[in-house]
Amino acid sequence: MTETKKRVYCFGGKTAEGDGSMRELLGGKGANLAEMSKLGMPVPAGFTITTECCAEYYALGGGYSDELKAEVAQALAATEAIMGKKFGDKNDPLLVSCRSGARSSMPGMMDTILNIGLCSETIPGMIEKTGNPRFVYDAYRRLIMMYSDVVMEKAEGIEPADGQGIRQQLDRMMSELKDAKGYKSDTDITAEELKDLCDKFKVRVKEVLGVDFPDTAEAQLWGSIGGVFKSWNGKRAIAYRRIEKIPDDWGTAVNVQSMVFGNMGPTSATGVAFSRNPASGDNKFYGEWLINAQGEDVVAGIRTPNPLNEATKTEHNKHLESLETAMPEVYAELDGIRKRLEDHFHDMQDIEFTIQDKHLYMLQCRIGKRTGIAALQMAMDMLDEGMIDEKTAVMRVSPSQLDEILHPILDPASEKKAEVVAKGLPASPGGAVGTIVFTSEAAMDAAAKGLKTILIREETSPEDIEGMRASAGILTTRGGMTSHAALVARGWGKCCIVGCEAMKIDFDNKCVSFAGSDAVYHEGDWFSLNGAKGAVYATKLDTMDASENPLFVRFMSIVDKYRRLGIRTNADTPEDAQRALQFGAEGIGLFRIEHMFYGKNSETPLSKLRKMIMCNTEEERKAALLELEPFIKASVKATLKIMDGKPVVFRLLDPPLHEFVPKSEDKRAELASDLGISVEEVDKRGENLHEINPMMGHRGVRLHVTYPLIAETQYRAIFTASAELQQEGLHPMPEIMIPVTVSARELEFQKAHCEKIRLEVESQFHEEIHYHFGTMIEIPRAALTADRMARTAEFFSFGTNDLTQMTFGFSRDDVGTFMGDYLGNKILDADPFQTIDVKGVGRLVEHGITAGRSKRPELMCGICGEHGGDPDSISFFNRIGLDYVSCSPFRVPIARLAAAQAAIKQND
Amino acid sequence: MTETKKRVYCFGGKTAEGDGSMRELLGGKGANLAEMSKLGMPVPAGFTITTECCAEYYALGGGYSDELKAEVAQALAATEAIMGKKFGDKNDPLLVSCRSGARSSMPGMMDTILNIGLCSETIPGMIEKTGNPRFVYDAYRRLIMMYSDVVMEKAEGIEPADGQGIRQQLDRMMSELKDAKGYKSDTDITAEELKDLCDKFKVRVKEVLGVDFPDTAEAQLWGSIGGVFKSWNGKRAIAYRRIEKIPDDWGTAVNVQSMVFGNMGPTSATGVAFSRNPASGDNKFYGEWLINAQGEDVVAGIRTPNPLNEATKTEHNKHLESLETAMPEVYAELDGIRKRLEDHFHDMQDIEFTIQDKHLYMLQCRIGKRTGIAALQMAMDMLDEGMIDEKTAVMRVSPSQLDEILHPILDPASEKKAEVVAKGLPASPGGAVGTIVFTSEAAMDAAAKGLKTILIREETSPEDIEGMRASAGILTTRGGMTSHAALVARGWGKCCIVGCEAMKIDFDNKCVSFAGSDAVYHEGDWFSLNGAKGAVYATKLDTMDASENPLFVRFMSIVDKYRRLGIRTNADTPEDAQRALQFGAEGIGLFRIEHMFYGKNSETPLSKLRKMIMCNTEEERKAALLELEPFIKASVKATLKIMDGKPVVFRLLDPPLHEFVPKSEDKRAELASDLGISVEEVDKRGENLHEINPMMGHRGVRLHVTYPLIAETQYRAIFTASAELQQEGLHPMPEIMIPVTVSARELEFQKAHCEKIRLEVESQFHEEIHYHFGTMIEIPRAALTADRMARTAEFFSFGTNDLTQMTFGFSRDDVGTFMGDYLGNKILDADPFQTIDVKGVGRLVEHGITAGRSKRPELMCGICGEHGGDPDSISFFNRIGLDYVSCSPFRVPIARLAAAQAAIKQND
Repeated sequence: MTETKKRVYCFGGKTAEGDGSMRELLGGKGANLAEMSKLGMPVPAGFTITTECCAEYYALGGGYSDELKAEVAQALAATEAIMGKKFGDKNDPLLVSCRSGARSSMPGMMDTILNIGLCSETIPGMIEKTGNPRFVYDAYRRLIMMYSDVVMEKAEGIEPADGQGIRQQLDRMMSELKDAKGYKSDTDITAEELKDLCDKFKVRVKEVLGVDFPDTAEAQLWGSIGGVFKSWNGKRAIAYRRIEKIPDDWGTAVNVQSMVFGNMGPTSATGVAFSRNPASGDNKFYGEWLINAQGEDVVAGIRTPNPLNEATKTEHNKHLESLETAMPEVYAELDGIRKRLEDHFHDMQDIEFTIQDKHLYMLQCRIGKRTGIAALQMAMDMLDEGMIDEKTAVMRVSPSQLDEILHPILDPASEKKAEVVAKGLPASPGGAVGTIVFTSEAAMDAAAKGLKTILIREETSPEDIEGMRASAGILTTRGGMTSHAALVARGWGKCCIVGCEAMKIDFDNKCVSFAGSDAVYHEGDWFSLNGAKGAVYATKLDTMDASENPLFVRFMSIVDKYRRLGIRTNADTPEDAQRALQFGAEGIGLFRIEHMFYGKNSETPLSKLRKMIMCNTEEERKAALLELEPFIKASVKATLKIMDGKPVVFRLLDPPLHEFVPKSEDKRAELASDLGISVEEVDKRGENLHEINPMMGHRGVRLHVTYPLIAETQYRAIFTASAELQQEGLHPMPEIMIPVTVSARELEFQKAHCEKIRLEVESQFHEEIHYHFGTMIEIPRAALTADRMARTAEFFSFGTNDLTQMTFGFSRDDVGTFMGDYLGNKILDADPFQTIDVKGVGRLVEHGITAGRSKRPELMCGICGEHGGDPDSISFFNRIGLDYVSCSPFRVPIARLAAAQAAIKQND
Repeated sequence: MTETKKRVYCFGGKTAEGDGSMRELLGGKGANLAEMSKLGMPVPAGFTITTECCAEYYALGGGYSDELKAEVAQALAATEAIMGKKFGDKNDPLLVSCRSGARSSMPGMMDTILNIGLCSETIPGMIEKTGNPRFVYDAYRRLIMMYSDVVMEKAEGIEPADGQGIRQQLDRMMSELKDAKGYKSDTDITAEELKDLCDKFKVRVKEVLGVDFPDTAEAQLWGSIGGVFKSWNGKRAIAYRRIEKIPDDWGTAVNVQSMVFGNMGPTSATGVAFSRNPASGDNKFYGEWLINAQGEDVVAGIRTPNPLNEATKTEHNKHLESLETAMPEVYAELDGIRKRLEDHFHDMQDIEFTIQDKHLYMLQCRIGKRTGIAALQMAMDMLDEGMIDEKTAVMRVSPSQLDEILHPILDPASEKKAEVVAKGLPASPGGAVGTIVFTSEAAMDAAAKGLKTILIREETSPEDIEGMRASAGILTTRGGMTSHAALVARGWGKCCIVGCEAMKIDFDNKCVSFAGSDAVYHEGDWFSLNGAKGAVYATKLDTMDASENPLFVRFMSIVDKYRRLGIRTNADTPEDAQRALQFGAEGIGLFRIEHMFYGKNSETPLSKLRKMIMCNTEEERKAALLELEPFIKASVKATLKIMDGKPVVFRLLDPPLHEFVPKSEDKRAELASDLGISVEEVDKRGENLHEINPMMGHRGVRLHVTYPLIAETQYRAIFTASAELQQEGLHPMPEIMIPVTVSARELEFQKAHCEKIRLEVESQFHEEIHYHFGTMIEIPRAALTADRMARTAEFFSFGTNDLTQMTFGFSRDDVGTFMGDYLGNKILDADPFQTIDVKGVGRLVEHGITAGRSKRPELMCGICGEHGGDPDSISFFNRIGLDYVSCSPFRVPIARLAAAQAAIKQND
């Protein structure tokens, strides 16, 4: 076997073998370390083991090829040469870190091991060299804690029965030591005590995990590399990938890098920074640092960190010294790097740095995560600064970030009157209102019931991911703006306040109180959060939406320049139509006749529809339809009026009739009296309408084939509304859509009835009525026979909800029983009801368009299923040449953006 | 508009403008009249108006083009020239008949008008010429009766409110006249009385229909032509076409032919004959004739007709004189024509003839309808006679005729012991057992409930079509072997006895008795018919099947030489497998695991399956499966043993689990005690299994993804059965089929479990187990992604039942509510659950095969839905390259024949 691929890429010493373009091979972190090295920035030397080696590792059943071993040895030698130290050397040992790095960032999801290389043989030399035994043993205890947790326990798939893993046990041992000695801080522990603690740690590790802690630098290094590879398939990482839709086969790279220490004393420090404010988008250098600390101390959120500079100090940290004043030269150097990185990457950067004895080292840079509002602000600022062009600006705001911007904020008026019970760090903006819960499980349970919650935690950990996802907002006692909770919430655009130190949580009694007040709040009480201010309210406030932001309006006008797809909306009432127009809808893609009977404010009485449905004779039905017609006409007319000059697709009555059979006793009695029959007769007629598989039953056009009068009533209502509006000088554009079609002849049959009614109404009003006649394509056979359909249909609207049901044979009502197993066993990558199934359903849609246009080149093709508001699906629809998508009013801006991004990507 | 198409084709005088190949244009009757003329046979001159003129007639809104009028005038002149008479002439008028003639015969479905041209102006000359006023007025009263019925009433769409049409009224007037005069026969009525009757007829016609009876030859001719065209869209004709699947747009031709008269006295006669016996297939000239009668008298079955020759006399008509002895020269000429026709057409001919004053005229010849057994007999005889080749012989028996042969006859043993209550004419063979009914409606009502009936009528009329279709057998008092009832029943292969003159029906009291007995039988009593003997039994006899006929066996061996498609069977028990083997099945295409729990004789207790389904924990389920496994294995093993050396496809448990939840109180109690839980708990667990659309719910492979243990139990049962049989020296060929698949990954997931179990069983038995692993393709997405499926699947079996459900979105359970409207409004040509929908479902099947074989060229493709036994569908499956079809055991011979016919047609 002659393999020539390169497995290891070195960086450091102001040069590198890789570069920033090699994300797939080196992972994001490795690629950027190489890029920073190439840019001449102070990066501690090291090397990256490629993502391909991750697959190789699994293919070898968890082993390393000889080629990899040789390349690692070579790269280690190069690193030693640059750093002037030797790994495992007795006198002046080089220590290294080992970090994962996938193509796309997975914050907190995978693992890091620091201080690799400390062992019985190297510790004495290290002490001699640093003259700081406390520092060395502190580093060693960190190594033991991280290594035993990541490599010896998690990577081996050991699941502690009581949830108390080795890491928790070692943490507790250290806490107990501090308690026993009365120490408040870790730094109070002496060198001797740390040395002793390390010995005890190793004993405990052996007891719990049954293996000795490795005592050679070499063993630690290879153990760590394997641990990182294995962390790719850890439970947390898999859960995260599922949510973020990251493919399982990408794998992670491993970055082995020389250690530099931010915890070597008061001239050392470590920090995290963003080149602009990741929450607001302000063009100010923004970050946090801790003196005499290692990086994990900042990220873990255990100590409240210092502000980076004077300009970004807040109420909350104004008493802490900034790096700008504490170490002005280092700050100046860092600020210069910030500018060079933005100029180089044309985007906001998320930076990790360490200061070892006043020397600045760059440990990482990557594109920074940001809130929706920050993404919008930065995109428009950078466009104005000339840093990026319009297309790039459009691509800089993701549809989910836009969604976040459109999410409600607390209504300022209602907020003004409310009392702030506490303040924390404004980690992720927006407003959240919900009842408080104290565990992820409770948040998930409530979400399953459709309830909104505020998740309250001391600090969050990756184990809390699903609960955070399920909650409306997150509130933590500890952590900074770059803590786990803050990073994750910001990524999702979820309202989050961290570091609310006044909050006292009593997990046992599931209640919370705030310093300076006797009030106690229990699980189930309402809280409201203002994520932009960090304000906590112990009450239920009103919310409002932020979509009238002028920045948003300007951004959307740029977005519209680049999209090809039209955007319509699914609206069944004049109110919905009005809202959708404000959001930029260009027409109504789906007006469901039956929905006018559902709304609470509806003028159209459901009882009249019920009466029509429960008729037993042609005569009864005629009479009932005659009663119904004016209501349908009024609703149709009001919507056509609002949408004047824009197309409105009216879909004929679609659901199985038995859905309208009243269930409650009084409604049944009312109906019986209305129809002049007994309740038993009502029940009997209802029973006759029962179907075993209603989704595939007597519905849609099938009803109208059986009862042409029902169709004719709807045609007449639509045409009469149009004629009246024309006489008022308006320009109604009705489009009539036949649902559940399976055969071209159904359409011909309906068209004949429809034309008959049109001619009647035209001669009644002396008005020429223009309309389009088309069909839903929502049954596989309709897509398969689209060429024949297009002979009669002037437009197609793909009903991808039903099309997905029939193509998969999945009932949306019942799919819950096995969808979890299908996603869990990776049989499906995504729920096909959320994101269009390109290989199956998508193929039918594509065939339908092609076949339809082969017979009618000008055929208008749209889609009106849930997928019309899903960005991934919109990208597919753009590619296959759909004319428009139609989605709910609130999704319209997101669809506009997704359509623009799809068009830009396609033309790239 | 320059139209050059010819609208009218002349025949007669031993030549013709058309010929026998022009069925589409001239209709069957017209084409054969032309062919007979060309063969020099004595055909009364006339002309045929083409089927295209029928469409033209409708296109012109019921009118005639100038071109047609001119061509008819020309053709009429040519006819007059040959016959030496003039139409409408005062002195020697030519009379003509007007008959419909479609491409394919529709016996009794469309109308005929005779004696056209008799009117005030021509009657005196006619009387003078014939010297027979009685004959002339009898002809005139027939004209009035037929014309007023066909042209003036039915063609105008007039529906008499009380069901008493003009024909019935005129009939009654004639009966009243006979009663008043004490006449027994029509022939007793005098010329004067007939003349008077004709006048009264015309008054009644005017009263009832509001129009004068036309009194010019020209008006009668064009009225008749229009009447024939209109009869194409008469209710009876449409109903017949629906049953026989004749397209509506074919249209009918009109044959206008010089009248010859069989009723001009004792040297005149009329008759109907078959060149071989249409009931048995015997190679004997067979027919019926009536002296001094018009053709309609024979067909209408009013008089019991005479036998044609001595050789075919029966018990029933041996007392009547044969044509052979009555008019030996005419018989000899007719017999010569019979031979020439068979030699010319290479098939059995159905002939109509008239003898006018000892001159023979041929009025019609066409391929004769025959029973299944006759078709088989004739095909094999003609093959042996060298008249046809093997392929033609195979094509000569239709699948439905074969079906008829396979239908039961009365068990001779049981018949021997029973008393014959009456005998009639053996019009159509086979045995029928059912309860007696007296109306078509009652037969249809009973059929809708799945009950078998014997329909008892005086004689049948086209109005009875649907009731005849619905009944198991037909018994009439009147009519001969060529009466309506006989022709129709034979066409359908339905048991029928006609002319049972001993039978007295009391329609008012819905009962029947027989001459010479006091016994009275009421609606609901059981009768049995032997259609081959004409024997009627007033009791319920046993039946048996006729498929062990040696002629059948020889025929099937020829059939098998020509087919390409393999034929398997759907069998779930050893008994079914055994039966299917006898019928020629080459393997089992579908063994449904769950069906072993359904059979009444099943050894496999349903209660154990129920227990497994209602389990709540993994442990309970494991235990229940362990109990179930030996039963599954035993059933699988017994079937594999019978099918030794032939493939058997086992389909994993498929239906939604809730189907197995017991409904009855005692079963629920039994299950509760079995599971050690309360009945309430049983009900609750059952409720949890309820689904809104079970057809698209948690079933098929979805169950096995959720509960891999259920799949593994089945795999183990199959492999263990195989291993044991191998150790017994047999060669089991199991094939494992995964149902309801939508994704290739489901297959991979199942294959992994399956292989695991195979390895376990192999090492347990030290036997190498061979099997094939495949999938149902029954969900549209499976067909759409067949290329990916074929990576794992070694075979596909198209489940066209479910595929039709999902492709149409038609639930088979609910489709009854609208299928009638879909067929009635011609939105669908056929029920897609009976005959494959080529344009939609067929397209998916074709795509599935092509895509699957693109990845795996040797992929075995079969089909196991209902369509596997449907000849039209088999023809499609042959064309698209399926490897085999699988159908129920009884359909296997039919599938073999359909497959051979499809192959022969395709290679033509």
